[in-house]
Amino acid sequence: MHFFSHTDILNLSKIFKINLINSCSGFKSANLLGSISKDGNTNVAVFSSITHLGSNPPTLGFILRPTTVPRNTYKNIKEIGYFTINHIWEDVIEDAHHTSAKYPEDISEFDMTNLEPEFKGKFKVPFVKNAPVQMNMKFIEEIYVPSNDVMLIVAQIQELYVNNDLLQEDGLINLSKGNIAAINGLDTYTIPKFKKQLIYQRPKQINNL
Amino acid sequence: MHFFSHTDILNLSKIFKINLINSCSGFKSANLLGSISKDGNTNVAVFSSITHLGSNPPTLGFILRPTTVPRNTYKNIKEIGYFTINHIWEDVIEDAHHTSAKYPEDISEFDMTNLEPEFKGKFKVPFVKNAPVQMNMKFIEEIYVPSNDVMLIVAQIQELYVNNDLLQEDGLINLSKGNIAAINGLDTYTIPKFKKQLIYQRPKQINNL
Repeated sequence: MHFFSHTDILNLSKIFKINLINSCSGFKSANLLGSISKDGNTNVAVFSSITHLGSNPPTLGFILRPTTVPRNTYKNIKEIGYFTINHIWEDVIEDAHHTSAKYPEDISEFDMTNLEPEFKGKFKVPFVKNAPVQMNMKFIEEIYVPSNDVMLIVAQIQELYVNNDLLQEDGLINLSKGNIAAINGLDTYTIPKFKKQLIYQRPKQINNL
Repeated sequence: MHFFSHTDILNLSKIFKINLINSCSGFKSANLLGSISKDGNTNVAVFSSITHLGSNPPTLGFILRPTTVPRNTYKNIKEIGYFTINHIWEDVIEDAHHTSAKYPEDISEFDMTNLEPEFKGKFKVPFVKNAPVQMNMKFIEEIYVPSNDVMLIVAQIQELYVNNDLLQEDGLINLSKGNIAAINGLDTYTIPKFKKQLIYQRPKQINNL
C-alpha cells in the first residue's frame, strides 16, 4: 500500500493534495443547488457534501467555505431563506460539472448549460427540471467550524419530489433506478449500481460462539 | 412524481420516514470506524456520513447523535483521541452492515464478524485489515448542532494508506478500482462504477452566445 503521513500530506503539491484528500473520504453525493437572488438572478451549482442530519424533522446539511466559491449560492440562501437540492443523473454530468466554473453573479448557470430551471410548489426558487429527486429546503442555521474555517449549513426539507420509479414501498428511494451519480474526489463521476438491501441488524447470540 | 410536503413527511410512519429521509440526500460514503477503549476493548462500526471538510490540513468530519448508538465509538474517541476510518468494499458488505447491531461495550464487533483488526503505524488503534483505504484520524473538536441535537465530529488525517492499484498520478484515489461501496439510505449497498473524469471548469466566453 502507498503510505502518507500527516507531514507527507502537508508537503504534497497543491493539485495532488486536493485530489488525494477530496477522494479519500469515499463516494460523495452529487447534487445541484438551485437558488435565486432578491433581484431574481437564478443560480445553480454542484455540491458533493450534502449529508443527512436527522429524519424528524427532516434535516440535511452541507459544507461551505465562506471565503471561496460558490458565494452566490450562499448569498442567495441568506437573502431568500430557501434553496433547492436536485440530484445529478447520468445524462447531465457534463453540464452539472460545468456549474463549478466561476461566473459573475448576474450570469445564470442555467443560461450557460442545458440545465433548465423549473418553478413549482409553494416557493419561488428554481428546481433543476427532470432531476429524479428534487427538494425545497428552508435555511435553519449555520454552524462555524473554527479548526478549518468552514461552515455547516443546516436546512429542513419543505417539499420532496421523487420520481415514481425510484420510490419503494418501504420508503427507500432506490437511487440506482434513476441513474443518479456519485462523485469521487473533485471531478470524477460514477454511476452506482444496486448490490443488495440488507435488514436491521440485531446482535448474534453470544453463547453460540 | 411522488410529492411529500414537510407536513406529509412529519406524518409518515416511523420506518417509512427514516428510509425516505435517509435516502433522499443521495449516495453516501461507506466506512468502518475502528476504535479502542482505554481498557483495550476494540470496536468497529459502520458510518455513512464521513464528509470532506478541508485539504490543508487534511480534515474530515462525521455526524453523531450523542444520545443514540454508536456510543462506544464516541466514548473511545474521547478517551484515546484517535480512531481509524476504513472503506467498506464489496467482499465485506454483510459483516460491515452487521456492526450496526447493538453489542455491549465489552463485545468487539471484530470477534462477532470476519472483519480483522490490524495494528500498524504510529498509533495503537485498530484498522480494518485489507480495507483498500485506511486512515488514522486525530480528534480535533466536536461542534454541536442545536436545531436537531447532533454533533459534527472534526478530525485530521494522521496516516493514510491507499492500495497502490487505486492511486492515480494526479493524486485521485480511484475508488471504483477497489470495488468500494456507497450506501443508499440505511441498509442498501451499491458498488459505483467509474463513468468519467472531467477537468477544472472555466467560464465559457459569454460573447460567443
